Amino acid sequence: MKLVYEGKAKKVFEQTDHLYLLEFKDSLTAFNAQKLGSFSGKGELNRNFASFVFRKLREQGIPSHWVEDVDQTKMIVQKLSMLPCEVVVRNFIAGSLAKKFGLPEGEKLQQPLVEFYYKKDELNDPFMSEDQMLSFGFATEKQIREMKQAGLKINQVMKDLFNQIKIDLIDFKVEFGVDLKNEIVLADEISPDSCRLWDQATKQKLDKDVFRRDLGNVQTAYEEVWNRLTQQG
Amino acid sequence: MKLVYEGKAKKVFEQTDHLYLLEFKDSLTAFNAQKLGSFSGKGELNRNFASFVFRKLREQGIPSHWVEDVDQTKMIVQKLSMLPCEVVVRNFIAGSLAKKFGLPEGEKLQQPLVEFYYKKDELNDPFMSEDQMLSFGFATEKQIREMKQAGLKINQVMKDLFNQIKIDLIDFKVEFGVDLKNEIVLADEISPDSCRLWDQATKQKLDKDVFRRDLGNVQTAYEEVWNRLTQQG
Repeated sequence: MKLVYEGKAKKVFEQTDHLYLLEFKDSLTAFNAQKLGSFSGKGELNRNFASFVFRKLREQGIPSHWVEDVDQTKMIVQKLSMLPCEVVVRNFIAGSLAKKFGLPEGEKLQQPLVEFYYKKDELNDPFMSEDQMLSFGFATEKQIREMKQAGLKINQVMKDLFNQIKIDLIDFKVEFGVDLKNEIVLADEISPDSCRLWDQATKQKLDKDVFRRDLGNVQTAYEEVWNRLTQQG
Repeated sequence: MKLVYEGKAKKVFEQTDHLYLLEFKDSLTAFNAQKLGSFSGKGELNRNFASFVFRKLREQGIPSHWVEDVDQTKMIVQKLSMLPCEVVVRNFIAGSLAKKFGLPEGEKLQQPLVEFYYKKDELNDPFMSEDQMLSFGFATEKQIREMKQAGLKINQVMKDLFNQIKIDLIDFKVEFGVDLKNEIVLADEISPDSCRLWDQATKQKLDKDVFRRDLGNVQTAYEEVWNRLTQQG
């Protein structure tokens, strides 16, 4: 099968005219791949996590590119024309937002905040405004509005899902593509690589920050989230 | 008279309950005051420039804090409750925008682009989205809308003014305050410190970039703009 693209955590293969095969790798990267790591079983865990969330979202009427799982580490997805945007939804202040505005991590926002970053490794994925997106043709007004709406809906479903297992969804990153009907569809993945997840009682981090900031065993953290998710039904 | 605040290029004195006295200094700074310079007569030149532009804007129905000039380097202005925002209006790609998106300087934008930066030296005045401004209470939706509208109107008047003297207005930065009637009013200054001005024929820079990037004699550049402005009537 033809390899179309190899990213930091996934490989993309051509499956058919309308489908890709995504393979989730065991690698783990941070700071635009300046920090590298991996653990055995990570690809499988993230594939399972992503399918699980895509299924939950679909039950709530939120479309994604996910079609079906294959093997332990792969999924078949719909081909989309990707928008060059990373969409971040935040419920609490953390990470780059805390640093940028000089604010303490962990403060709750009055309402969820949606942000757009230009997906371009060479430029370090710069933060951008909606007017900049329009100026440079990265998305249309309709696409921006729909990405915001979808981001907020996904946030609501995921917040509820994690709340049931005593985890706060601090923030997460998603990407969208456009399908043949010109509609916005959730793409890429949702996993502990792309979410901040804090235990509600202990505030312990159960996401990629464990690796990013050397806070302990990242494998244990990812497995903890997965076990809670699957044991609660 | 009581000194209320000393900035990088101006001093602010208490004049009356409702008025400040602004004194324009000869100093010139760049990169958040990491680069320092000055030239004799700069304060007078910028004061004259700012008054000139404020007068032209007022003729077009755009209010500013300017009341009247005093001495060579001072002006009386209305006291305002300042919004913590730097509002940048761009007609061409240059400076931080070029760097951020990896684009060449000097390309014309299809339409003027308005940007907001959080005015906070310690944080290096970070770029922010309208949703971030709302989240952190830096401005209300109405104030954001009015700053954008005012920025675009100011841009139109200034573009025409500079076009008459064969200069392209590449971009400029303004600040706004709120008056006692709760209305947005243009504050601070407009000068070659806060504008990018390029000769239309030679593309020669006639603004603070001459100092910022060591491109020649900054005094000559500022005087050139002022002479053209005042000689055309």
